[in-house]
Amino acid sequence: MSVKSPVVIDLKFERSEVDAALADAFAGRTVLHASDPASDLSEARYAVIWKPDPSLFQRAPNLKVLFSGGAGVDYILAMAGLPDIPIVRFVDQSLTTRMSEWVVLQALSHLRQVPAYLKQQRDHEWRELPQPEAKDLTVGVMGLGVLGMDSVNKLKMMGFDVIGWSRSRKTVDGVETFDEGQLDAFLARTDILVGLLPLTPDTRGLYDAALFSRLRQGGALGRPVFINAGRGGSQVEADLIAALESGVLGGASLDVFEQEPLPATSPLWDMENVIITPHAASASDVRALFRNADAQILDYEAGQSLKHVVDRKAGY
Amino acid sequence: MSVKSPVVIDLKFERSEVDAALADAFAGRTVLHASDPASDLSEARYAVIWKPDPSLFQRAPNLKVLFSGGAGVDYILAMAGLPDIPIVRFVDQSLTTRMSEWVVLQALSHLRQVPAYLKQQRDHEWRELPQPEAKDLTVGVMGLGVLGMDSVNKLKMMGFDVIGWSRSRKTVDGVETFDEGQLDAFLARTDILVGLLPLTPDTRGLYDAALFSRLRQGGALGRPVFINAGRGGSQVEADLIAALESGVLGGASLDVFEQEPLPATSPLWDMENVIITPHAASASDVRALFRNADAQILDYEAGQSLKHVVDRKAGY
Repeated sequence: MSVKSPVVIDLKFERSEVDAALADAFAGRTVLHASDPASDLSEARYAVIWKPDPSLFQRAPNLKVLFSGGAGVDYILAMAGLPDIPIVRFVDQSLTTRMSEWVVLQALSHLRQVPAYLKQQRDHEWRELPQPEAKDLTVGVMGLGVLGMDSVNKLKMMGFDVIGWSRSRKTVDGVETFDEGQLDAFLARTDILVGLLPLTPDTRGLYDAALFSRLRQGGALGRPVFINAGRGGSQVEADLIAALESGVLGGASLDVFEQEPLPATSPLWDMENVIITPHAASASDVRALFRNADAQILDYEAGQSLKHVVDRKAGY
Repeated sequence: MSVKSPVVIDLKFERSEVDAALADAFAGRTVLHASDPASDLSEARYAVIWKPDPSLFQRAPNLKVLFSGGAGVDYILAMAGLPDIPIVRFVDQSLTTRMSEWVVLQALSHLRQVPAYLKQQRDHEWRELPQPEAKDLTVGVMGLGVLGMDSVNKLKMMGFDVIGWSRSRKTVDGVETFDEGQLDAFLARTDILVGLLPLTPDTRGLYDAALFSRLRQGGALGRPVFINAGRGGSQVEADLIAALESGVLGGASLDVFEQEPLPATSPLWDMENVIITPHAASASDVRALFRNADAQILDYEAGQSLKHVVDRKAGY
């Protein structure tokens, strides 16, 4: 047994990337791999996990802290046998920056009518379309955590009118914000809805027909657009497809789905003005993840408190 | 004759938009339309123009100032019979913001591998691609005027490493800049080249095989990308096509072309990783154009100097 308590790794990431990142991480600490069935995990005090095997908690009964390999933790909270120990969310500049890249890219793609222009390109058609500018559109961001706040700031900087919604009211400089009781007012102002909410009992199935129908109609793009980079469990895909078919929604950018991978038979793949990415909006930089966990473990062992600990009642 | 000297309009824009904008512009001043062949333009002192008829200068021999309806003025400088009077470029927040929307959209589209993901979408294929982040790429912006500077700032804010080039050295906070004599050093650092140069004798045919071959190979995207929103006359399209075919370039976003509309037979339309828009990256807001010209005319008549006057020797 090393002087420092062992850490167990159970990440469904590319193994070569994990190994490369481990070369510079957890100095002086034994690193155990849950993927090795012969590995004795009984001494492990810490676990760095992303979609771990259900057997983890039986094999490692002495864990003191769980570190999530992604921003979301809904997959952990749903696990059977989850011990009552702190769960640390992964908060990292790289994760945040990548998410904002994707959100700004999608908002600009709908503003600048990328699907329509790409269709014209395929047809070799040269035709300028009527073009609103960013300030003519209100982007409503749901979820004002670290990811939401960074997206809000970058969308504003690109010229969009931006408003924000969170369960409990947040104050954001220069941005009008709404809370739980003001969802209708928020939706009525929103031309492009950006979902960056965690999956919790409150947000499961939140994006449904009733919600889509309350978004602003007749804005500068004509019809509202739905962008989701939060969790697929928050969207009712049957309602989403119906809203796109009926014209309640004019377009969508989706990185998350009720079932992932999105089944090849889903009509979403072929819908006009729908942009699909394979849960790739952001990505955990595994080096940053290990740096983060390493530093927090050292602080924890020195008696300091952990940062970004999940509130189990809130679900994030 | 009205108390205020008349202004002639010769804009190849949508006539209904021009008329709507005129309702609120040039109060107390006679507005003449060059498109009306019977209109007597001999008293006109000012002209607001975009690709005007060649006969304009014969019909309006008493012009004192020309206002360009776009950011570029190469089309004016090439006109036969151009009188020796000030030419005012159109500088406007809306024009600038729209250009930056397009530039940031294109840079993000190549960073986030939009053409590859759209192909996977068409094939109903769910596959995450290896993904660098913005800071791993250096965007080199050529042209550091009003448009270039706004793009530089917004690209930086999105996380890109940004460097800038201009004929004479410009100082930009937090951005390494290069001048005429340092083009090689600038290109050798550049993963994504953004062209925002005016068309002048110096920039005609600037983007050619020799230039493309000096861009950085082996950066985070593998191969360099060329984005042009300046003028098509600056690019040698045969060289551009050859560079895309041979892999000297990995992709391009093009809003301008040697010949516009881009002929339907151009191979660019169908090239993988090439994004084409029909000279729509930015657009003059005709209301802003008239507001701008109106205010400058009043200043000029009050003896003040005009702003954004073209340096004919430099060509912009």
